[in-house]
Amino acid sequence: MLLRDLGEAELLRRLAAYAPPGQLDDDAAILRPSGDASLVVNTDLLVEELHFSDATMGPEDVGWRAAAANLSDLAAMGCGPVVGITVGLVAPADTAWAWVEGVYAGLSSALGHYGGQLLGGDCSGGRQRMLAITALGRLGAGAIRRGDGRAGDWLVSTGPHGLSRLGLALLQQELPAPQAMGLGETLRQQAIEAHRRPRPRLDAVETLAHCQPPGSPWRVGGTDSSDGLAAAVAHLAGGAGCVAELNRGALPIPTELAQLPQGEGWCLAGGEDFELVLALEPAWGEALVAALPGCQRIGRLIPANGGAAAGSLLWQGSVEPVAGSRGYSHF
Amino acid sequence: MLLRDLGEAELLRRLAAYAPPGQLDDDAAILRPSGDASLVVNTDLLVEELHFSDATMGPEDVGWRAAAANLSDLAAMGCGPVVGITVGLVAPADTAWAWVEGVYAGLSSALGHYGGQLLGGDCSGGRQRMLAITALGRLGAGAIRRGDGRAGDWLVSTGPHGLSRLGLALLQQELPAPQAMGLGETLRQQAIEAHRRPRPRLDAVETLAHCQPPGSPWRVGGTDSSDGLAAAVAHLAGGAGCVAELNRGALPIPTELAQLPQGEGWCLAGGEDFELVLALEPAWGEALVAALPGCQRIGRLIPANGGAAAGSLLWQGSVEPVAGSRGYSHF
Repeated sequence: MLLRDLGEAELLRRLAAYAPPGQLDDDAAILRPSGDASLVVNTDLLVEELHFSDATMGPEDVGWRAAAANLSDLAAMGCGPVVGITVGLVAPADTAWAWVEGVYAGLSSALGHYGGQLLGGDCSGGRQRMLAITALGRLGAGAIRRGDGRAGDWLVSTGPHGLSRLGLALLQQELPAPQAMGLGETLRQQAIEAHRRPRPRLDAVETLAHCQPPGSPWRVGGTDSSDGLAAAVAHLAGGAGCVAELNRGALPIPTELAQLPQGEGWCLAGGEDFELVLALEPAWGEALVAALPGCQRIGRLIPANGGAAAGSLLWQGSVEPVAGSRGYSHF
Repeated sequence: MLLRDLGEAELLRRLAAYAPPGQLDDDAAILRPSGDASLVVNTDLLVEELHFSDATMGPEDVGWRAAAANLSDLAAMGCGPVVGITVGLVAPADTAWAWVEGVYAGLSSALGHYGGQLLGGDCSGGRQRMLAITALGRLGAGAIRRGDGRAGDWLVSTGPHGLSRLGLALLQQELPAPQAMGLGETLRQQAIEAHRRPRPRLDAVETLAHCQPPGSPWRVGGTDSSDGLAAAVAHLAGGAGCVAELNRGALPIPTELAQLPQGEGWCLAGGEDFELVLALEPAWGEALVAALPGCQRIGRLIPANGGAAAGSLLWQGSVEPVAGSRGYSHF
């Protein structure tokens, strides 16, 4: 059986058997589940051709994006302060120092912005450029877990989706010229920025804590949308043993993008938007939407009885399933 | 300027500019320099063709070795308990699941032996198989630092060197048959085991702490010999601003191996023996040699005045420099 035939989801399921039960269920791992200063650790890979290419990203973008993707997993776990990162760099011997320098400048720039230091790392030759980043952070007010949603929760997105995929399409000149030209200059710039310089939503974690309704215990279901909005929602629904009901009229998609035929698909499954997708009791969800600009309710969790299995996504008021919840496979 | 022309040492020197001063000087990074429970983090890469190949290692060996190399860096930093590892796995889509399964079985087996859990990780496709492991541990009695040696210290090795390189030579049938046949079966098995299943010397760290002379403060210069014995000694000498004087008659080399023409070279620069090389005040060194089987004094640190520069290695009673202190370059 080859990895190609196994698929990424099944591979991850099998690898989870080597860790304590539930250990690999979340965006990152908590080292010490108790105490205010719990450390959180996360490792992410960026492989040339699969995650970046010279055609669409400069080396500083690669570095920024590598750090940002990892910090986004820390945010998705509920981290406040970032401790730092270690960097494993694989590069063929004919790689220019200037490229490496640019990558580290991008990494540093992200750390300068979000906190944390370069803690250590390793370098090696190899056939293909690759970055393996491990990020360490400390939990803020509480942990955010994929499995902590409950039926009745609001599903909330901290920002727009589909922009990163649009940015990639623009950089790869994938869109027919009239379509691309029909988009405003501001949106185009925003989309390219979203693709090259994604922003981990550590700020949203802070606002989330401020919005906790008095008297409510800390319970936040959540993940980031690095693998796509629909995949994130499916994780929350599956973790809660629920079905997710999405409001098709309230997708977190910029108006202009919604007018493209690809718009809805990119919003749901484009990936790499690095927003947080949360399952919150309605009062908390409402408070967060009011406090955090760009944050909106996108649906709710409902019990998984009847026809739809736990982890599935339906459009509100319909029995039609939502496409795109499988996420991207890297094999 | 390409990485090939820059060289690994200069690359690491340049990358250190992106971290706080001194941050990248040691085998691993201490997260919180104070307190008993300081966390230590280390990232290592294993790249197919450079660090392992199907010709000389099965998948379980690859997994064991990947974990062991990382845990060795934790030992070299003075760690006691291992917290765990994260694993970044890159593998082409046509990789057999059985290979991945073997690697994880090897990783688990090492963790079962030395402690710690699989904490998390990431998987991706790619052109070449690669493992990026980040290990986390907690400091034991005190930190071991490359720069903490002083003139007058004993240089001590916790075990034999050259075995892993001999094992590789045997597996690659690099030795002429009469030479290989001249070695005893026990040594050959030991050498192959040393190459495929290296042992991180966490046990030696424990013995080291028990041997601390009453009234002496904690001060231990040290590193592991993953890049070769001479390179390890050069790091200790350089970090202490000293010259290392090695006793050519007391190299930590198995007798039979010493009789091969390659023996001394492999002992000094074969690499991947994963022993600890320590700089200790003489009383502490003597106590450790007495307490730890296989541990021996190999030389001492002397002031760097006169002709020899700090970080250089001389044979005791001679002005001849010791070869092999540059270590292995992975580019």
